[in-house]
Amino acid sequence: MAYRELKERSWRCNMELSRRNLIKYTFGNASAFDVEKRMFAIKPSGVPYDELQPTDMVVVDLDNKVVEGTLKFSSDTKTHTVLYRKFPGIAGVVHTHSPYATAWAQAMKSIPVLGTTHADHCTRPVPCTPVMSNEMIKGDYEEETGNLIVDTFEKNSFPHREIEMVLVACHGPFTWGETPEKAVYNSVILEELARIAFLTLRIDPGVPPMIKELIDKHYLRKHGESSYYGQTK
Amino acid sequence: MAYRELKERSWRCNMELSRRNLIKYTFGNASAFDVEKRMFAIKPSGVPYDELQPTDMVVVDLDNKVVEGTLKFSSDTKTHTVLYRKFPGIAGVVHTHSPYATAWAQAMKSIPVLGTTHADHCTRPVPCTPVMSNEMIKGDYEEETGNLIVDTFEKNSFPHREIEMVLVACHGPFTWGETPEKAVYNSVILEELARIAFLTLRIDPGVPPMIKELIDKHYLRKHGESSYYGQTK
Amino acid sequence: MAYRELKERSWRCNMELSRRNLIKYTFGNASAFDVEKRMFAIKPSGVPYDELQPTDMVVVDLDNKVVEGTLKFSSDTKTHTVLYRKFPGIAGVVHTHSPYATAWAQAMKSIPVLGTTHADHCTRPVPCTPVMSNEMIKGDYEEETGNLIVDTFEKNSFPHREIEMVLVACHGPFTWGETPEKAVYNSVILEELARIAFLTLRIDPGVPPMIKELIDKHYLRKHGESSYYGQTK
Amino acid sequence: MAYRELKERSWRCNMELSRRNLIKYTFGNASAFDVEKRMFAIKPSGVPYDELQPTDMVVVDLDNKVVEGTLKFSSDTKTHTVLYRKFPGIAGVVHTHSPYATAWAQAMKSIPVLGTTHADHCTRPVPCTPVMSNEMIKGDYEEETGNLIVDTFEKNSFPHREIEMVLVACHGPFTWGETPEKAVYNSVILEELARIAFLTLRIDPGVPPMIKELIDKHYLRKHGESSYYGQTK
Repeated sequence: MAYRELKERSWRCNMELSRRNLIKYTFGNASAFDVEKRMFAIKPSGVPYDELQPTDMVVVDLDNKVVEGTLKFSSDTKTHTVLYRKFPGIAGVVHTHSPYATAWAQAMKSIPVLGTTHADHCTRPVPCTPVMSNEMIKGDYEEETGNLIVDTFEKNSFPHREIEMVLVACHGPFTWGETPEKAVYNSVILEELARIAFLTLRIDPGVPPMIKELIDKHYLRKHGESSYYGQTK
Repeated sequence: MAYRELKERSWRCNMELSRRNLIKYTFGNASAFDVEKRMFAIKPSGVPYDELQPTDMVVVDLDNKVVEGTLKFSSDTKTHTVLYRKFPGIAGVVHTHSPYATAWAQAMKSIPVLGTTHADHCTRPVPCTPVMSNEMIKGDYEEETGNLIVDTFEKNSFPHREIEMVLVACHGPFTWGETPEKAVYNSVILEELARIAFLTLRIDPGVPPMIKELIDKHYLRKHGESSYYGQTK
Repeated sequence: MAYRELKERSWRCNMELSRRNLIKYTFGNASAFDVEKRMFAIKPSGVPYDELQPTDMVVVDLDNKVVEGTLKFSSDTKTHTVLYRKFPGIAGVVHTHSPYATAWAQAMKSIPVLGTTHADHCTRPVPCTPVMSNEMIKGDYEEETGNLIVDTFEKNSFPHREIEMVLVACHGPFTWGETPEKAVYNSVILEELARIAFLTLRIDPGVPPMIKELIDKHYLRKHGESSYYGQTK
Repeated sequence: MAYRELKERSWRCNMELSRRNLIKYTFGNASAFDVEKRMFAIKPSGVPYDELQPTDMVVVDLDNKVVEGTLKFSSDTKTHTVLYRKFPGIAGVVHTHSPYATAWAQAMKSIPVLGTTHADHCTRPVPCTPVMSNEMIKGDYEEETGNLIVDTFEKNSFPHREIEMVLVACHGPFTWGETPEKAVYNSVILEELARIAFLTLRIDPGVPPMIKELIDKHYLRKHGESSYYGQTK
């Protein structure tokens, strides 16, 4: 049971998604990455959250080989693998179909920065990828989903440690973070940002993005060297 | 008590609808079909969910004759009967007035395939029937509701095992499945699809349906011979 | 304690409003009428629902005189009195500020019959009163609110036993019924109708009202001599 | 433990915000002011609500000096200080990112008086401040947020005891009251007003504000010398 802690941590993150109402039935998954061993624990495929046990989690390496576990891993596992390989410094990935974030993804639109709730977490719009090409769909689909995310970040020079969330067009949100718990937190925040931005644009469809100075001020309250939010650790 | 198990299964499905917030008061019903005996257990008419007991369920045959039970069966029973007679391979039917699906039914519009959440379950728009003719309304109304659903599927060559959900115009959703539990699951999913499609079209009313390649990819991940979602049974 | 049962019944109805999430803090009230004694028990003014006790309820006669109780009665009491005097056959009145029904009242629009969920309860649009005149506002305001409702029904020949709900313009919903429990039920149903109609018109603002034949069919399934919904009592 | 009661009161108010679903994670804060000692207890910065203890609260004076407590105070503390200094008679301040109120703030629009639910609490639109100038953003940001609120009230001659709520443009709501519990109450009410106004304008974007006579009537039922709502104390 060498991976007991990693599996329990991944299990707790998956259960937290369910407890926070981001998941219906089996529609989502969270993984926890061991930065030193370069392996991660992920939810098995298609097991309902109310039956899920810590021992059900599957440990996988970055070649998608099962290291521990008897169940089949989540069908989205290869997307997680690509993110762990290409986004250095992250140790958790989460995928959900939470309704407001998924609606923005289906509308194929990035979520603009309209207020400080957004800027507290992210200085830029939450990006939406382009629709995947037929080529990629016919290839290794879940791996290509990861590639699509990474390409979107690379082509636009988006820093993946500053924008820890993305909308995959016509599909839904993925988030990550330096811990699995932070990735879960980001999924909850993303759904809330998506909802408030949705409501704002119903009140005034022409509202402009928030001014840059206010975006930077709020982000830097919480991040970087001169941050002053939270308790010193 | 020959039908004890069937009644309990039907009761559990009805209670699950209530627990998942798809039902207010007595607005809905689930039935469980015994494929060999060709009979089904259904909720009695107008009994609130918090008073419902397994022994209250009524067992009915495909001629709408009561086989077991002392209460009057749900007023929608004949709709269930038609579906069990005409849609081979199904063993559960559910009817609710869940708000988003009902809103689409009242708007008399099919729900377009806008994302993978939809395509995971169904390769086509969730169809909406035409409005029932005055002739049919004045006839055996609940049986005609079943006929309207079956006609809509036949005229459009919709495969009833691939699209396990329908909106009855100006009324609300019906779902079915190869088990009663699957029919309940389909009702929960339909409400979620209906809600996310609603939100998507508020963000961009002109968003096109998702490309066919992506629809097929997602459906075939979960269904058919080369599916790879879930655990092998 | 002559009125113990009436007070407990009124208390249970008030608590049910809170349990069904139709009430925030003290924003609503339910009363229970004794048809023979011509008196009713109502919530005291401004007492939060989580502190409310059955013994707090105030018994009032149709001249607004307190018959039993030490607390001040709800500020909306006189509206209840008018309804009990003018609408024969009712034994319960409820007022809430539930959000969707209140939004329709603030928009000063009747809720059109768009589907069977509405027609199951009411054959016509849920009427919205005109805005109260300055004269009436400066008079005995709460009594005039009752008069405004009654006038709206009289001028339009609305049958108060067929339409057991109304929107008071710029204010919110009132419902009634042959029992206090039915009045509570009608408030829950009204909020649901208001919500589904709201959603329907966002999907298609031009959707026409449901055809008359279908309205009548659904209403008569549940009401009148040839009704066949529910268990025979 | 001289400030035990003040800290407990502030803690209870913070927990009530969480219980009423106005808060996600650490997104909000409530403070309780001791009018005689001119000090207030406030939530520490960045501590999740489910871990918060009464002893964690920080007591601060009106020069932002910590009087008691070992944790860092909320990053919004200086905004609270300005309000306690400039708004005489208040003893509680609350800040949340509740979704409907925040959406109005992001749309940079005041919430119009569309019904009696609003007028029961406030005779005027809930004001939205202008967007903060770059000068102020670069200065002492949280103090300037307080100044922006106070300036908005002074320039428009808004009485701060009649309008106990404000939207800070692109940010979110602040509320206050003569007790900390009243400030919490006002945050709950504001979210409800914001939601019902949002829904009303979706039904009819052109609906006019409610007539002045009805606004005054409802406000004066609950406030001032001739109020008659609630129990006499």
